[in-house]
Amino acid sequence: MKAVVKPGPVKGAEWRDVDIPTIGPNDLLVKVQAAAICGTDNHIYEWTPWAQERVTPPMIFGHEYAGEVVEVGSAVAGWQVGDLVAAETHIPCLQCYQCRTGRQHTCEQMRIIGVHVDGAFSEYAALPVACAWKLPSGTSPELGAILEPIGVAANGLFKDRIDGASVAIIGCGPIGIFGAQLAVAAGARQLFATDINAYRRDMARRIVPEATVLNPLEDDVEAIVAEATEGRGVDVAIELSGSQPGTEQAFNILAKGGRVSLVGLPSRPITLEMTGAIIYREAVVYGSTGRLMWDTWYQVDALLKAGAFDPTPVITHRFPMSAFDEALELTRGGNAGKVILTP
Amino acid sequence: MKAVVKPGPVKGAEWRDVDIPTIGPNDLLVKVQAAAICGTDNHIYEWTPWAQERVTPPMIFGHEYAGEVVEVGSAVAGWQVGDLVAAETHIPCLQCYQCRTGRQHTCEQMRIIGVHVDGAFSEYAALPVACAWKLPSGTSPELGAILEPIGVAANGLFKDRIDGASVAIIGCGPIGIFGAQLAVAAGARQLFATDINAYRRDMARRIVPEATVLNPLEDDVEAIVAEATEGRGVDVAIELSGSQPGTEQAFNILAKGGRVSLVGLPSRPITLEMTGAIIYREAVVYGSTGRLMWDTWYQVDALLKAGAFDPTPVITHRFPMSAFDEALELTRGGNAGKVILTP
Amino acid sequence: MKAVVKPGPVKGAEWRDVDIPTIGPNDLLVKVQAAAICGTDNHIYEWTPWAQERVTPPMIFGHEYAGEVVEVGSAVAGWQVGDLVAAETHIPCLQCYQCRTGRQHTCEQMRIIGVHVDGAFSEYAALPVACAWKLPSGTSPELGAILEPIGVAANGLFKDRIDGASVAIIGCGPIGIFGAQLAVAAGARQLFATDINAYRRDMARRIVPEATVLNPLEDDVEAIVAEATEGRGVDVAIELSGSQPGTEQAFNILAKGGRVSLVGLPSRPITLEMTGAIIYREAVVYGSTGRLMWDTWYQVDALLKAGAFDPTPVITHRFPMSAFDEALELTRGGNAGKVILTP
Amino acid sequence: MKAVVKPGPVKGAEWRDVDIPTIGPNDLLVKVQAAAICGTDNHIYEWTPWAQERVTPPMIFGHEYAGEVVEVGSAVAGWQVGDLVAAETHIPCLQCYQCRTGRQHTCEQMRIIGVHVDGAFSEYAALPVACAWKLPSGTSPELGAILEPIGVAANGLFKDRIDGASVAIIGCGPIGIFGAQLAVAAGARQLFATDINAYRRDMARRIVPEATVLNPLEDDVEAIVAEATEGRGVDVAIELSGSQPGTEQAFNILAKGGRVSLVGLPSRPITLEMTGAIIYREAVVYGSTGRLMWDTWYQVDALLKAGAFDPTPVITHRFPMSAFDEALELTRGGNAGKVILTP
Repeated sequence: MKAVVKPGPVKGAEWRDVDIPTIGPNDLLVKVQAAAICGTDNHIYEWTPWAQERVTPPMIFGHEYAGEVVEVGSAVAGWQVGDLVAAETHIPCLQCYQCRTGRQHTCEQMRIIGVHVDGAFSEYAALPVACAWKLPSGTSPELGAILEPIGVAANGLFKDRIDGASVAIIGCGPIGIFGAQLAVAAGARQLFATDINAYRRDMARRIVPEATVLNPLEDDVEAIVAEATEGRGVDVAIELSGSQPGTEQAFNILAKGGRVSLVGLPSRPITLEMTGAIIYREAVVYGSTGRLMWDTWYQVDALLKAGAFDPTPVITHRFPMSAFDEALELTRGGNAGKVILTP
Repeated sequence: MKAVVKPGPVKGAEWRDVDIPTIGPNDLLVKVQAAAICGTDNHIYEWTPWAQERVTPPMIFGHEYAGEVVEVGSAVAGWQVGDLVAAETHIPCLQCYQCRTGRQHTCEQMRIIGVHVDGAFSEYAALPVACAWKLPSGTSPELGAILEPIGVAANGLFKDRIDGASVAIIGCGPIGIFGAQLAVAAGARQLFATDINAYRRDMARRIVPEATVLNPLEDDVEAIVAEATEGRGVDVAIELSGSQPGTEQAFNILAKGGRVSLVGLPSRPITLEMTGAIIYREAVVYGSTGRLMWDTWYQVDALLKAGAFDPTPVITHRFPMSAFDEALELTRGGNAGKVILTP
Repeated sequence: MKAVVKPGPVKGAEWRDVDIPTIGPNDLLVKVQAAAICGTDNHIYEWTPWAQERVTPPMIFGHEYAGEVVEVGSAVAGWQVGDLVAAETHIPCLQCYQCRTGRQHTCEQMRIIGVHVDGAFSEYAALPVACAWKLPSGTSPELGAILEPIGVAANGLFKDRIDGASVAIIGCGPIGIFGAQLAVAAGARQLFATDINAYRRDMARRIVPEATVLNPLEDDVEAIVAEATEGRGVDVAIELSGSQPGTEQAFNILAKGGRVSLVGLPSRPITLEMTGAIIYREAVVYGSTGRLMWDTWYQVDALLKAGAFDPTPVITHRFPMSAFDEALELTRGGNAGKVILTP
Repeated sequence: MKAVVKPGPVKGAEWRDVDIPTIGPNDLLVKVQAAAICGTDNHIYEWTPWAQERVTPPMIFGHEYAGEVVEVGSAVAGWQVGDLVAAETHIPCLQCYQCRTGRQHTCEQMRIIGVHVDGAFSEYAALPVACAWKLPSGTSPELGAILEPIGVAANGLFKDRIDGASVAIIGCGPIGIFGAQLAVAAGARQLFATDINAYRRDMARRIVPEATVLNPLEDDVEAIVAEATEGRGVDVAIELSGSQPGTEQAFNILAKGGRVSLVGLPSRPITLEMTGAIIYREAVVYGSTGRLMWDTWYQVDALLKAGAFDPTPVITHRFPMSAFDEALELTRGGNAGKVILTP
């Protein structure tokens, strides 16, 4: 089969012939129908320090995908050839404390698809059944491929109740847009969304018209939020920028007793004046990574089934998988929503 | 002033001249602008056993109301003549364990406006500032008068999260309709509403088109819910009928791990097969009375401010207060939504 | 091997030669070292309606057990021959909504060891790895065998916080004693325990000296609790009797806003005056069955490792497994704690 | 009367004659029987930037105190001359969103006793009844005076469950010792306590023998915690040092999914590598200030009434109030527990 392979410890990747994976007794073999590009894929492509610490080439990357089951492992129950499937990225060991108390997504022996094991920018992929989410027959593969990043947004947002809350989304990339949509779907009272990138602000305005979209470099975000919230601040801030100013702003606009979910991964340490930002405010700060397996998937599924939001407009570009160089470059510029590769 | 007075331990009431109330240091004097009729008022009018146990005539009844502050007690801060106010019915002592741990609505020395102390079917009413909810200038008095029963629905519904949930409302009186509206506003995925009364089912269909409205005497509610929920049942049931069949049905259609809020007050004991209804199902059952002071009021206020629902269509009839006999009789028949009295 | 077999749809059981079980790819074969008797075993032995509805003889019963792994299924990771293991009774399908959201113990396709599939009153037993709890080397098999019923108590008790709470245990059988011990270990402020059986009250007094042990047929439980709690009532009641008077009492002694866990299985419907018992009190009622997999096991393990309680005194009698007739008869009389069978 | 007065915007204080306070309609006049010294008092005495921003001299400081009610305001119910009282430091407005949703301790118009209004290093003090906690007759005034700082520890600790948890206390000053005692009382499984000050480590070892007491400058805290927790880390860390290394350590020893309460007030910004410290770990961080009014007071009271801990050994020194210079100097050195002043 053809696959996008990271060939060695250098920048770039190759569209290469490789063997179709063989599967173990608890795996599914999936014919990939759509894969979406994540920031992680660019780390691997660009061979950043983050990737150098984690990836052992040669390896197929790509992990947001959906497809059709073409082979079922010998010890697997409940799956059949022909089933549609979306992939959860985190491979849990199922034996550690985290896995056995409803927190498989923070498994103590976590491996990540497309980082530690072969991924899905390829025609076929092996998927542990512990990572398989069954899609109703007829589901669009593109929608299946973006459930994983929608889940990132949902996990950050749904740490507690949203109904009636004022919510700020710091960062209007795809996960920010999904988060804004989910907040509206879950009954948020007010919604603010900020980004320094004009393309992303436009995308936010177009897809989530309920949001007050702001440019933190030009708008006085604190004043605008204070005015709109009777001086109280937002109940919930979702930090997706991973930046020093974004993180500071999340706290500066936060109500007393409010909560911040840290989702964006800062590449550098963050400095905060804790006394005012967190302690006197009795803020609650949630680290948020991945998605609850499978609570988050069910939450998203329930809102999709209710027709409460439509994430597909966040998909802005589509490429054949062989054009991965061009597709990845597009996403690095920040001027795209989700980008889909089709084998 | 004129007031609706329960004159003695007999059925009925009188439209009578009484003194304008004098207020204490921690009270407000309110010029009543709109009052709504509650089932409690009919208990008092009809002089049922419930009323006989609680009410000491002569007494002015009526407790769902809004109006304008015309006098402010000497020890009251934060209120001015001319402020608009809605009344919370439960008078907390502010000193007991319940009051001092965020549960004033279940005060250990609770007194109820219009039951234990003079109420508001009158031109003026004395309101303890501990029961006063400030309304934004310009708020319709009718909306102010129904915030209290909206809060009953909200307290029952918001024991936990609603977003993405399947919800069943057992009983489509005004509180049921408010509950159905709040469930939609808070992101419920699916909504079922049942009543044996055709007027109420019609009201539910008209005001909450998202709901599947059912007649439990004719429809196979369990089968319909099972079909719509992939066999799982509803996540949340709100029991408002106070009846044996309504309570049983709440559990029969409940998912494993689901929750039931008991809001409707049964006049007789209820018999349940606990093993199947609650234990094997690991159901959670919440008794729900009144409203959290003031969390529930803020929740409702947030959803109103967001424009997430409009409760005013539930007001179906309006009378001058002197026509209280006719108005109360209308509500006893069950063929009305909220009924407003104006002094 | 030898096993206690329910031979057919009649009262009684037989100590019989049967084949050692063959195991599937996701199973362990366990050499049983200790098994404890549960009320369920008497239902099966006595062939009550409960058993007739569930059990298809011939079948080996018994499900509370611990032993040594002697064979490991081909697809099992993380287990080795020689490991010590305790069994969780509920076999989850791992694919349904309940299983995939941290509630495997209420699996929608639940099967129960010793009820639906062969159990462990036998020399060897097949155990799905999804039901296997690893014991530290050196753990007493008797302790391992009673972890399952300790978990029943813990699941009922730990629905929410216990520290600083007043707790009542309704029913002083083994699960009641475990619950009382766990309440003390978790920082309960006050502890009441009731039973109509003198042997069980004595056991409670001996093993949990912190408890005020009462006989509801002679003591004025409500008055004693009211006096000790400044009139407030208990914060938490654990209902283990499954009886009408026990259930009523759980609510009668409950504080406003308190919680009741229903654990004991009533064999008949229960009648409650809901308005006073639950609604005006804003009580929370939790159905509680089995144990969270594996949160409850970890909670119990943590308290055991801390030396916070010692459940082994609840084991009052030991028999060779072949003496199962005598052992079961002893437990039916109620004058025993846990009874251990050794193959 | 005599009082410790901050006379002007300079270092130091004076033991001076002042008028006995006159009280308002919602106040109590308290004859101070014992007052305890808090770090805040040293800020005011030393006239640090923190104090300069908040305090307008002349002002009486001191806020941890207990005494006897000698006069009751005209609008106060439920209090009598002769009642014993302990003071809550935070004066809530009772009208803002925070105050009306169970969070009076983070009132939006908060004033602090002994910071914004006259405090209690004096013979008499005026206390708003909204800040008054009634003590049972016979309570030691010294115990009453330290309930406020015990509440600081309890608020930090009891953000969620403690039973069965591994807990680390970063900082063994009086609040740290109280926190360690409360953790034991609430059923913590394991307890670690760290301080760089030898006096405080000795105090911790003496008063909380269950704790593993460590010196972070000499002991390998991470390795010791990892060893004791099977590599998992602590479930709960309470940060009391307000320092960069203390805060870092709280996260370095934290289990996945664990929680950190930030209680100690850093005087400088704190820098954290958020990705590893919080995000991948899915840590929950709670800002914690003051005490819940009055949930925390009741929690502490319940554990005291249960005899679950004895905080009085943390009182290490007693002085007449006139010797405040010497007493404050002692506390600045860090070689003291709580220090009591008696008028």
